[in-house]
Amino acid sequence: MSILVVGSVAFDSIETPHGRVEQVLGGAATYFSLSASYFTDVRVIGVVGEDFSAENEAVLTRRGVDTRGIEHVAGKSFHWTGSYLKNLNEAQTLKTELNVFETFSPKIPAAYEDSEFLFLANIDPVLQANVRQQMPKAKMVGGDTMNYWIHDHRANLEKVLVGLDALLINDGEAKMLAGEDNLLRAAKKILATGPKTLIIKHGEYGATAFFSERSFLSEKPGGEKAGFVAAPFRAPALPLDAVVDPTGAGDSFAGGFFGYLASQPEVTPAAFKRAMFYGGVMGSFAVEKFGTERMQELSREEIDARFERFRELSHLE
Amino acid sequence: MSILVVGSVAFDSIETPHGRVEQVLGGAATYFSLSASYFTDVRVIGVVGEDFSAENEAVLTRRGVDTRGIEHVAGKSFHWTGSYLKNLNEAQTLKTELNVFETFSPKIPAAYEDSEFLFLANIDPVLQANVRQQMPKAKMVGGDTMNYWIHDHRANLEKVLVGLDALLINDGEAKMLAGEDNLLRAAKKILATGPKTLIIKHGEYGATAFFSERSFLSEKPGGEKAGFVAAPFRAPALPLDAVVDPTGAGDSFAGGFFGYLASQPEVTPAAFKRAMFYGGVMGSFAVEKFGTERMQELSREEIDARFERFRELSHLE
Repeated sequence: MSILVVGSVAFDSIETPHGRVEQVLGGAATYFSLSASYFTDVRVIGVVGEDFSAENEAVLTRRGVDTRGIEHVAGKSFHWTGSYLKNLNEAQTLKTELNVFETFSPKIPAAYEDSEFLFLANIDPVLQANVRQQMPKAKMVGGDTMNYWIHDHRANLEKVLVGLDALLINDGEAKMLAGEDNLLRAAKKILATGPKTLIIKHGEYGATAFFSERSFLSEKPGGEKAGFVAAPFRAPALPLDAVVDPTGAGDSFAGGFFGYLASQPEVTPAAFKRAMFYGGVMGSFAVEKFGTERMQELSREEIDARFERFRELSHLE
Repeated sequence: MSILVVGSVAFDSIETPHGRVEQVLGGAATYFSLSASYFTDVRVIGVVGEDFSAENEAVLTRRGVDTRGIEHVAGKSFHWTGSYLKNLNEAQTLKTELNVFETFSPKIPAAYEDSEFLFLANIDPVLQANVRQQMPKAKMVGGDTMNYWIHDHRANLEKVLVGLDALLINDGEAKMLAGEDNLLRAAKKILATGPKTLIIKHGEYGATAFFSERSFLSEKPGGEKAGFVAAPFRAPALPLDAVVDPTGAGDSFAGGFFGYLASQPEVTPAAFKRAMFYGGVMGSFAVEKFGTERMQELSREEIDARFERFRELSHLE
């Protein structure tokens, strides 16, 4: 099944202990699309400026990503400048130049309307809500957000969260959103008011899925649903030799998770768990090189080999 | 098989966001012993003062722990005062009163000499080395340490590390010991010069075992050993509703890990992996109440039920 993703297609300038790159292709929707493209058909909605070259677009189309939803307008593309010199686990934003993103109004091509999976990457929740409304037939809707929207645009964000099948955020964002330092209690609070399922990403320690009564997983084998909540599920992450550039790890996780789910005939508990592992796998590849480089060159064989390593990492006979 | 543990038997005064306790029974050897007692016979070596009551000792003997190696001397017992108000994941030491521990010289009762498992809890590496020398027949030797010994007593510590079958430390200690921020590279550096196997504890995210060529696990099914290194193994930790008091979580992990291993007819890779899970299980119980309270009242049924939850937490069908 096809996935539609809306989010930033951008340029990043990044410094990490391993070096620095200037104006490389990035953006949440870019990482998500490349990652999901190894599993299913992906369609992107975004906006770019005149500095976005045919070669930039070809990075996506070479992976089979449908870029007809990327609008080209006058001006410069979104440009993010960040540093991981102080902390490899958390980006320090040095500059955010929204440029053409400032006046972005997502338009969904008619050819995209039958997308059954929808992912609302980290953008203004007003835009996320707008796209959600234009896609009433989407069967499974995922979303991401960040501290800025949680802190300064909470009312708008809450309108988006309540309509999500799965929210994917990290530890810090979950604690901020819930106003609660204990992760399990934070998860319960978020689920009580918002998304049906919550996936909290722990960086190098993997990710945990938390379920509510409204989660599709909270269905007992016999079909009984009321009051049953599936136990949390944790996908581990592989200890990595070198984290070259953490940019895009979360979006690549989301792409792998959603991409794998969309590739399955049915969203079963077993498929959901495997999807969590594929999310971790894709996130772990993303950080091995600067920018989207690693996400462009993978093979399904490499991906499945790492999936097996992840599976064995915590597997008891 | 019996485990001999040497370490502190002490009193702790602790404050956490959930309250405070004064002068409760604590100490690394106490937590370790109680935890391991659910799996196998445990013998303790330590020293206490006149303030250590018959009731304090009965906490251990009620769990079947052999306390003949606890020396009673004139003076006060070791007393640690710590706070978790600033950070629930890292104790802030407010006061360390070594008292009778200052002149501690471990003596091993003849009845303990056949212990096949030896655990050197976090004490002065000079004492760890001393005990190790008195137990030449121990088949498997584990150890713990902390930042203070790493930073100020490195030469003494290194003499201990080289003789360990398994070193159990946390993320921060591993990075400090290796002088390396990347955990996988830190693990490789530590294994290259010290213990045969390294277990790094990640608090709420579980623990990872790293193996060297000298690890018993680095043996191929056919028996071939040279150059083969088993892949890292991660035991997850359950997301917990309330962490009341993190004191002793690491020692309880070590007790569960070592206790389970000692209870098995043979230390196979499968037993080692299950032992990692039992370590995580015991650590997760320890933090649910203040002091050693939770570790005193468990049943093997409760322990095994949580083991199953841990197993399912990251288990793919």
